[in-house]
Amino acid sequence: MVREALRRTGTVTEVFATGDATVGYRDLRELAAESGVVWYTVDDETIASLSQTVTPQVVIAVCRFLDVALDQVLAPAPSVVVVGADVRDPGNAGTMIRSADAAGAGGVILAGSSVDPYNAKCVRASAGSLFHVPICHGVEVVAVLTRLAERGYQTLAADARGDVDLDQLIDSGRLARPTAWLFGNEAWGLPDSLQSLSDAVVRVPIYGRAESLNVATAAAVCLYASARALRPG
Amino acid sequence: MVREALRRTGTVTEVFATGDATVGYRDLRELAAESGVVWYTVDDETIASLSQTVTPQVVIAVCRFLDVALDQVLAPAPSVVVVGADVRDPGNAGTMIRSADAAGAGGVILAGSSVDPYNAKCVRASAGSLFHVPICHGVEVVAVLTRLAERGYQTLAADARGDVDLDQLIDSGRLARPTAWLFGNEAWGLPDSLQSLSDAVVRVPIYGRAESLNVATAAAVCLYASARALRPG
Repeated sequence: MVREALRRTGTVTEVFATGDATVGYRDLRELAAESGVVWYTVDDETIASLSQTVTPQVVIAVCRFLDVALDQVLAPAPSVVVVGADVRDPGNAGTMIRSADAAGAGGVILAGSSVDPYNAKCVRASAGSLFHVPICHGVEVVAVLTRLAERGYQTLAADARGDVDLDQLIDSGRLARPTAWLFGNEAWGLPDSLQSLSDAVVRVPIYGRAESLNVATAAAVCLYASARALRPG
Repeated sequence: MVREALRRTGTVTEVFATGDATVGYRDLRELAAESGVVWYTVDDETIASLSQTVTPQVVIAVCRFLDVALDQVLAPAPSVVVVGADVRDPGNAGTMIRSADAAGAGGVILAGSSVDPYNAKCVRASAGSLFHVPICHGVEVVAVLTRLAERGYQTLAADARGDVDLDQLIDSGRLARPTAWLFGNEAWGLPDSLQSLSDAVVRVPIYGRAESLNVATAAAVCLYASARALRPG
């Protein structure tokens, strides 16, 4: 995680590490030095007081905020963006950011009452992808959907009650267009008002007896369907 | 979760609920009565002492163990089974069970040093699917792979270093055969010895800069690729 942060120019302001980690993570020290980031070697108590996990991390990077405005996410015209509407669980939000990165989505918008991307659990679940993918947060869901429509995106809302199933959507060829995938809250899904603002409400087909998928899992399945449809060649 | 447990005949031995829940969950009380399960209405302190979550659940079902022997999982000749090799995180294991259920896999084998399926976090992450899908645990990974080969399954190991990518695998038509998907530990993936016992080592393609996917997420993407390949018609 610290490596990914250091690789992103201008992100890390300072690094704190134990004596052992300072010796052991020579590559990180070199990365820090190259970027002019100060590296402090501190005692275990100091590290423990900075860490939020039961087993303290041995290297801690202090970073600037990373989030950008919605128009900045959309400026490079990414083919796929991810919108979380009231995604509250930090593990889910972080996993969504990681999957968005893996599937080549160009940005993640944590809209409405979605969890703060800087929540420690979200940061950890993102496994470094927070430093790879442009993130926007603290924006109103309807405002996001309006802007996406203006920019020519189709909005596909993922919901267990959707009227199109993902297989039909794949077969239809619709995934080859610029797409914003919209995912809702863990407990109550997407309200009707947001579903009706979307171009289609898509359900991941359930072949067994599960009622639904975890939202981060559903997001990965949908984003990989888009990635496959958009593969060059 | 209690509803799914009650629907599975012979699973629940008794139910404890608060007074409010006893009034509010009439459908659960009826389900319990139909199955001859005793329903105890108890005070909040009793419920809190039985619950492991910070906010106690209001209905608690005591269940028999659910796991079955490997041959029992394989007896109905499911088209797809999931094998976890040393999957340690209970949230990941539970999410894998939920995704396996959703994608129509016929069983989940938590092999090697994988987490106990009765771990409370695993149970919760499975969102009821623990009661839908046959589960086997406490078996040696190599013994499982041997048995699967004897039964005619191809074993596809999912690993970020795999030499076949999932898209190639889909295009090759190989997913239409009876398949055991093998997933490894969160931190170190699948050891070479297990990869070499598999028929193919498959990587989920990474389109962005993420190093890998969360193991439960990768499992969902692979299982849905199999489900799509096995769709009737």
